[in-house]
Amino acid sequence: MISTGRNAALAGRPEGLEQLRSLLDTALRALGDAALKRGGPVAPGGPEAAVAAVHEALGGGRLLADEPSAQRVTELFEAYARWAVDLTHPSAVARMQCAPTAASAAAELLAAALNQSLHAWESGPFALELERRLVRELASWVGFGAQAGGTLTPGGSISNLMGLLFSRERALKDTGAVSATGLAGRPVRPRILASAAAHFSVARAAGFLGLGRSAVVKVPVDDRGRMLTGEARRIVEGFDADEVPVAVVATAGTTDHGSFDPLPELADLAAEYGIWLHVDAAYGIGALFSPRLAPLLDGLGRADSVAFDLHKFGWTPASSSVLVVRDRTHMECLDEQAVYLNPSDDESLGFTALLGTSLQTTRRSDAFKMAATLLTVGREGMGDWVDACHEQARYAAGRIAAADGLELVADPLLTTVIFRCAGADGTPAADESALNAAVRRKLMADGRALLARTNVAGPDGTPRVHLKLVFLNPTTTEADIDALLRDVSAAARELAGR
Amino acid sequence: MISTGRNAALAGRPEGLEQLRSLLDTALRALGDAALKRGGPVAPGGPEAAVAAVHEALGGGRLLADEPSAQRVTELFEAYARWAVDLTHPSAVARMQCAPTAASAAAELLAAALNQSLHAWESGPFALELERRLVRELASWVGFGAQAGGTLTPGGSISNLMGLLFSRERALKDTGAVSATGLAGRPVRPRILASAAAHFSVARAAGFLGLGRSAVVKVPVDDRGRMLTGEARRIVEGFDADEVPVAVVATAGTTDHGSFDPLPELADLAAEYGIWLHVDAAYGIGALFSPRLAPLLDGLGRADSVAFDLHKFGWTPASSSVLVVRDRTHMECLDEQAVYLNPSDDESLGFTALLGTSLQTTRRSDAFKMAATLLTVGREGMGDWVDACHEQARYAAGRIAAADGLELVADPLLTTVIFRCAGADGTPAADESALNAAVRRKLMADGRALLARTNVAGPDGTPRVHLKLVFLNPTTTEADIDALLRDVSAAARELAGR
Repeated sequence: MISTGRNAALAGRPEGLEQLRSLLDTALRALGDAALKRGGPVAPGGPEAAVAAVHEALGGGRLLADEPSAQRVTELFEAYARWAVDLTHPSAVARMQCAPTAASAAAELLAAALNQSLHAWESGPFALELERRLVRELASWVGFGAQAGGTLTPGGSISNLMGLLFSRERALKDTGAVSATGLAGRPVRPRILASAAAHFSVARAAGFLGLGRSAVVKVPVDDRGRMLTGEARRIVEGFDADEVPVAVVATAGTTDHGSFDPLPELADLAAEYGIWLHVDAAYGIGALFSPRLAPLLDGLGRADSVAFDLHKFGWTPASSSVLVVRDRTHMECLDEQAVYLNPSDDESLGFTALLGTSLQTTRRSDAFKMAATLLTVGREGMGDWVDACHEQARYAAGRIAAADGLELVADPLLTTVIFRCAGADGTPAADESALNAAVRRKLMADGRALLARTNVAGPDGTPRVHLKLVFLNPTTTEADIDALLRDVSAAARELAGR
Repeated sequence: MISTGRNAALAGRPEGLEQLRSLLDTALRALGDAALKRGGPVAPGGPEAAVAAVHEALGGGRLLADEPSAQRVTELFEAYARWAVDLTHPSAVARMQCAPTAASAAAELLAAALNQSLHAWESGPFALELERRLVRELASWVGFGAQAGGTLTPGGSISNLMGLLFSRERALKDTGAVSATGLAGRPVRPRILASAAAHFSVARAAGFLGLGRSAVVKVPVDDRGRMLTGEARRIVEGFDADEVPVAVVATAGTTDHGSFDPLPELADLAAEYGIWLHVDAAYGIGALFSPRLAPLLDGLGRADSVAFDLHKFGWTPASSSVLVVRDRTHMECLDEQAVYLNPSDDESLGFTALLGTSLQTTRRSDAFKMAATLLTVGREGMGDWVDACHEQARYAAGRIAAADGLELVADPLLTTVIFRCAGADGTPAADESALNAAVRRKLMADGRALLARTNVAGPDGTPRVHLKLVFLNPTTTEADIDALLRDVSAAARELAGR
């Protein structure tokens, strides 16, 4: 049925449509079977079994096969589905990675079959107008006005990178020290202020941009990971003459606590010193949908750039990341005029595209699947889902606080819960850390639960391994959470030999 | 049938699978209907009609709707498909953007529904092992050995950016001038050699990396756009003491002529001066699949890094870009150890992922769809398809050379053909340029054909607008090409009033 080799079908041709239908049947069957065979959020067996599963699915052979095979493709589909992490399983609470809506998944099929791109008018005229409209709307979500601009990006790290790129262009073009036009003039030390709890992609971006990872000054935080504005101010005021403040990076929804840096205070500071304010709201954007949680984002509209991911709190598949800027003239450093892509005589007649908003040239149409989720779930539905996840976290925290052998670190701020399995009285902290790490690995290898881990400083300041739950699935119930916590406690008892 | 609002379905849940099936029926129906309604490679009407189509599909409303609507989603699917550029249409010959195989499109559906990521073991254990295997195999394609490394990226521009990042780390860390650890020491002028025909993303990447666009030295080319090694050598030998050669960027398959820089000679030069050799084979990688064309890539294995796109010549949807390096130790600048993602105790037990190979954190599983195409088409099939596209270009060139009123620029090297519609004798060059640009726009706005354009210098050195055909669809026939060229000639006659 599925033709191979030189006779393989292209998706958009009439014969391809028939074969696509048949392949989608295979895919849907694989999806349905996988949940049954898997029996948990991931197949049991751990890393070795996963490696073996790929090897077996490929028959140990090469991907660019000498003998193309429809059977091999079917087996790969089945193995991929069976070995996938099931993000709809209530015990998949490890990563900031959401289960997508059916509508967004179906939109991705259409996007894949049609393979539109956004870099020239004739590479996807509808797709690019859809992105334009979506970006305008996304900018309005964060409180930006008519002067705003932005783009979709492949992920939060690249969204942060772009925000910092614009800040570098603004801060250092004027000094003539490091700029898009080269390294010249007197040496300066660029400085980016970010909290100690900021995402590691901020420092990595500073490295990529030639500012150096050491450009990032880590501002102290309170006990929930919130940047202390007073400390930030003290740092800025103490800069030497050759230290150039490039950006303040505020985090809205930190990875661990889901805490929010004080945006209004940081906006005041940034305005006072003329520093670019970038807000990493990759995870925290969820609060925007919930009338109850939205005040956490007060001040967001005063940022110069905001990054956020709808593949975290937006129930669309990656890549669904967003970078919006308050004033789109700051995106001009991306402008490209290529005689073969966007000549001015074509542009003046409306044959325009989105080449000048992105680090990319060919770029997939991510707006389409995002639109499918937004249209299907709607404003109130998104808010209800975020609230549901927030309630799950609060419920889990309550159960953990009440449980024997589990120690809650703090009440949830958004949808994460940090806790640990306590060792017996007098257990050295290192052994307790090892226990928690082992509990997590055992649950993963058994295919029973996927939790995250992180470090929290103990009373003596030494980092101790903790466990973390990330709730992003609105369908999870209290009974599901009870079952998850029972599994955690049972694994801890077994490993501690109690 | 399709539930909305807070009751909207997640793809992986049992009720979601049912709704996904129904939505995929809608998508397939939209795909089938679109080809009929469109009647050409794109819907007629040009830019204004495309903007109006998006507006109408959304009912003029917001995407994050107050009233979620299944009907609106269906209409968006239909409009997206109807307004998509049909890459399987034989007159869609504008961009380096391929029609994907049915197998790769179906794989994308599975990938979207399951939303795996590659940044932590528990975000996609099978997906990340599949990428590891694919990258090893891709590195072997270009002739790299066991020490090779690499990653999939969102596109060719980012693949080039990564190759140049590694070259910057190698060249400038040692000088202490610009490095991942900051800007310090004496000023230097970094230099990147690339041909005048290299892709604009090279200069753009130099800007992003803080080297400055002016770091790129444009090496002269021959009349087919091939870098002149003697000129490159002369430039390197003439560098001042403060000029630091960072990289030589060779292009394998230029955007216009599809010409190949002399890789063996440039590898010699790079080796002699200890300069990083990056090869941009985004388009030219296709030659690798064809025994007849493969010699064009001789010397590729001597590069330090190679970028190539399977969303150009690999019949998979974007994003399917690749960056491979000969020695993976050069990727160490990407290493990240995040306590919550890849702690060493987990890694030592096999719970590893691909965080340290990428600019990204959350990263979609692009290997899966690429595997689906490779397994389905196979080595010989890929070669046959590339050869078919090459033959199409040769056939088209022959017809153009023989046609009244069309002027061929040169014989095709890979799968592009550059030509122009000639004005009547004595037509000023500017008028002829305007005619060619207008022919292209008319064919686009009429929905009859999508061609590319570029500039070629006339006898007096002034750039003149030319038309370009890019053949990437193996199913196109000689009759299709005849019809396309008839359309071009007819449009030219009509616009020239002949």
